[in-house]
Amino acid sequence: MHHRNAVVIDLKFARSGVVEALKGAFPGREVIDMGDPANAGRDLSGVPYAVVWKPDPALFERARDLKAIFSGGAGVDHILSAYELPDLPVVRFVDRSLTDRMSEWVVLQCLTHLRAALPYARQQRDRVWHEISPQPEARDVTVGVMGLGVLGQDAVRKLKVMGFDVIGWSRRQKQIDGVETFDAAGLGAFLARTDILVGLLPLTSDTRGLYDASLFAMLREGGALGKPVFINAGRGGSQVEADIVTALEKGVLGAASLDVFEKEPLSPESPLWDLANVVITPHAAAASDVGALFRHVERQIDRFEKGEPLEYVVDRSSGY
Amino acid sequence: MHHRNAVVIDLKFARSGVVEALKGAFPGREVIDMGDPANAGRDLSGVPYAVVWKPDPALFERARDLKAIFSGGAGVDHILSAYELPDLPVVRFVDRSLTDRMSEWVVLQCLTHLRAALPYARQQRDRVWHEISPQPEARDVTVGVMGLGVLGQDAVRKLKVMGFDVIGWSRRQKQIDGVETFDAAGLGAFLARTDILVGLLPLTSDTRGLYDASLFAMLREGGALGKPVFINAGRGGSQVEADIVTALEKGVLGAASLDVFEKEPLSPESPLWDLANVVITPHAAAASDVGALFRHVERQIDRFEKGEPLEYVVDRSSGY
Repeated sequence: MHHRNAVVIDLKFARSGVVEALKGAFPGREVIDMGDPANAGRDLSGVPYAVVWKPDPALFERARDLKAIFSGGAGVDHILSAYELPDLPVVRFVDRSLTDRMSEWVVLQCLTHLRAALPYARQQRDRVWHEISPQPEARDVTVGVMGLGVLGQDAVRKLKVMGFDVIGWSRRQKQIDGVETFDAAGLGAFLARTDILVGLLPLTSDTRGLYDASLFAMLREGGALGKPVFINAGRGGSQVEADIVTALEKGVLGAASLDVFEKEPLSPESPLWDLANVVITPHAAAASDVGALFRHVERQIDRFEKGEPLEYVVDRSSGY
Repeated sequence: MHHRNAVVIDLKFARSGVVEALKGAFPGREVIDMGDPANAGRDLSGVPYAVVWKPDPALFERARDLKAIFSGGAGVDHILSAYELPDLPVVRFVDRSLTDRMSEWVVLQCLTHLRAALPYARQQRDRVWHEISPQPEARDVTVGVMGLGVLGQDAVRKLKVMGFDVIGWSRRQKQIDGVETFDAAGLGAFLARTDILVGLLPLTSDTRGLYDASLFAMLREGGALGKPVFINAGRGGSQVEADIVTALEKGVLGAASLDVFEKEPLSPESPLWDLANVVITPHAAAASDVGALFRHVERQIDRFEKGEPLEYVVDRSSGY
C-alpha cells in the first residue's frame, strides 16, 4: 500500500526529458516512475494519481485505487480509445507553451504554402532566380480551421493577425469574435469556402478517417492558391493517407503539411515523404514540455485535494 | 509640350503587370509609358509627375518640368543614389499590401529557423523520423529588428503576437509600445541581445556594407537557437556577402534568409545558393502590387493638386 498522495508516471516520451523534469517535481509526494525498470513489479494499490502518455495497458488494472488520470498531452485518445477505463476524471494537458508551439507550427505551414517556400527551395537548389507569380497575399486566402478548442482558437487568432481570412468549424458551433464559424450541419459550406484546411481535431469515433477523398473534393477549387492545401496537426487517425496521396497526385490538393500519421513513425515506404509540395514533421508540432506538464498536474492535484473542481476534464461521452 | 497633368511611367517591373495595371489607372490624365518603345523619343517637357523604379538615367534630364517623383517601391536608393536629381519631393511607396507581404516573409523566415524547417526538410528527403531537440519556443528567442519605419514596426508587432521576444533598432531612437528600442549609440547592446537579426534598413551611405563580419561577431552566441541567424529583406547593398558566407562556414552564424543581394540577380556562382541553412528568395519578399502603387500615386497627386502636403516624402539629407 502506497502513501495516499503518490503519483504514478507512465510517459512514453524521450526518457532523458522525463528524468530531468522529475527532479524536484511533486514535492512531498511519492513518485513511481514506470520508466524505471526497478518499478516494473511495484505494487500500485492505493496510488490516487496517474500521469500517462500511451500507458501500459495493465496500468489501470494494477493502479486500481486511482482517483484521477492526467493525460501527458492535449489529446486523450491514447487513453480513451485503447482501454476499458474505470469511471474516473481524465484531465487533458492544457498549457500556454504547448498552445504557443502548436500555433507556431500552424502559422509556419500556412505561410510556407502561401509564400511558395517549397517551389522557391527547389529553385534555390537549381540556382534559379525567378519570381513566382502571381503571389497572393494572406488576405486573399481563406484558412478553415477544424477544431476550435484552446489550440484551434489560438491558431485562429494568430492567423488573423498575419492577415489571413479565417473561418472555423467545430461539431457544436462556437462563437469567436470576428470569425465566421460553422457546425456539423455546415461542413459543406465551410469546406466550399476553404483554401487551406487546418486540422486540429481530437480523434474520436466521429473524426476517425474524416479527412478522405470525399472531403478533399469539397474544398474550394480555383481560390487564390489555385488548389486547396491540407494541413493536419491533430491526429493521424483522422486522415486517410492513401486518399491524401491520390489527391496530391491528381491535383485535387495542391500541397500538404502533416505532423501526424495513421501509424507513427511514418513508414519509410510511404509515398508522402517525397511528394513535391508536402512537408512532413515527426509529430513534433507541439511536443509536450514535461516540466510544464508536471507543474500543470501539481496545480490540478492541489485543486482536487482542496475540494475544488478539476479543470480541463474530458467529456467521456464526446471523447474529448 | 504635354498636358499639364500628365504622368510619365518608367517602371522596370514585369511588363505584363504594368500594362494590366495601367488599364483604367490615372483617369483624366495623359499617361506616357516609357516601357512602350513607341514612346522612346517622346517629348517629356511639361510633364509634372513621374512614377519610377530604376528609371533610365536620362529621364530626369528629359522630363525637366517634374514637380514630384514617386518611387515604385518602399526603397528610394534606386533613385537617390544613382542620379543627380533636381530638388523635388520624392515620395516613397507605402502600402498596406506591401507592408503585409513583407511581414509575411519576415515571420515566415523567423518561424522557419525557430522550428528547424530546413533540418526537418533534409530529414524528410532522407525519410528520417526524428524529433530535433531541444526545440526552443518563440518566447525563448530574441528577434532584433533593424529599421523601424512602416515595415519594421509592422514586423515587430506581428513577431510579438507570434510570441517572440522582440527588440528594435533605428539610427534615431523610436518609441514603440512594449518594445525595447535602441539608437545608433546602442548598437552594441542591441546586437549582444539578438538571436535573430532582421534587416529592414534603407540603403544609405550609413548602411552600405553594414552587415559584415564585425557586426555578425557582436550578435549573441549561445542563445536558445545555439547560433545567431541573419535575415535581410532590406537592401543587398547593406550586406557583405563574402562575410556572410564565411560566418556561416565558420559557425559564427547558424543560418540565414536573404531576399536581397549586392548584385541582383544573384550570380549562379555564389556559394550562398547551397549552404546548408540558407534560404534564398529572388527579391520577392514584398513585390510591389502595381495596381496598388498607381492608386497610391493617384491619391498623392490629388492631395498635391488640392494644395495639401504630400505624404511619405523622403528626407533627402538622411537618404530615406
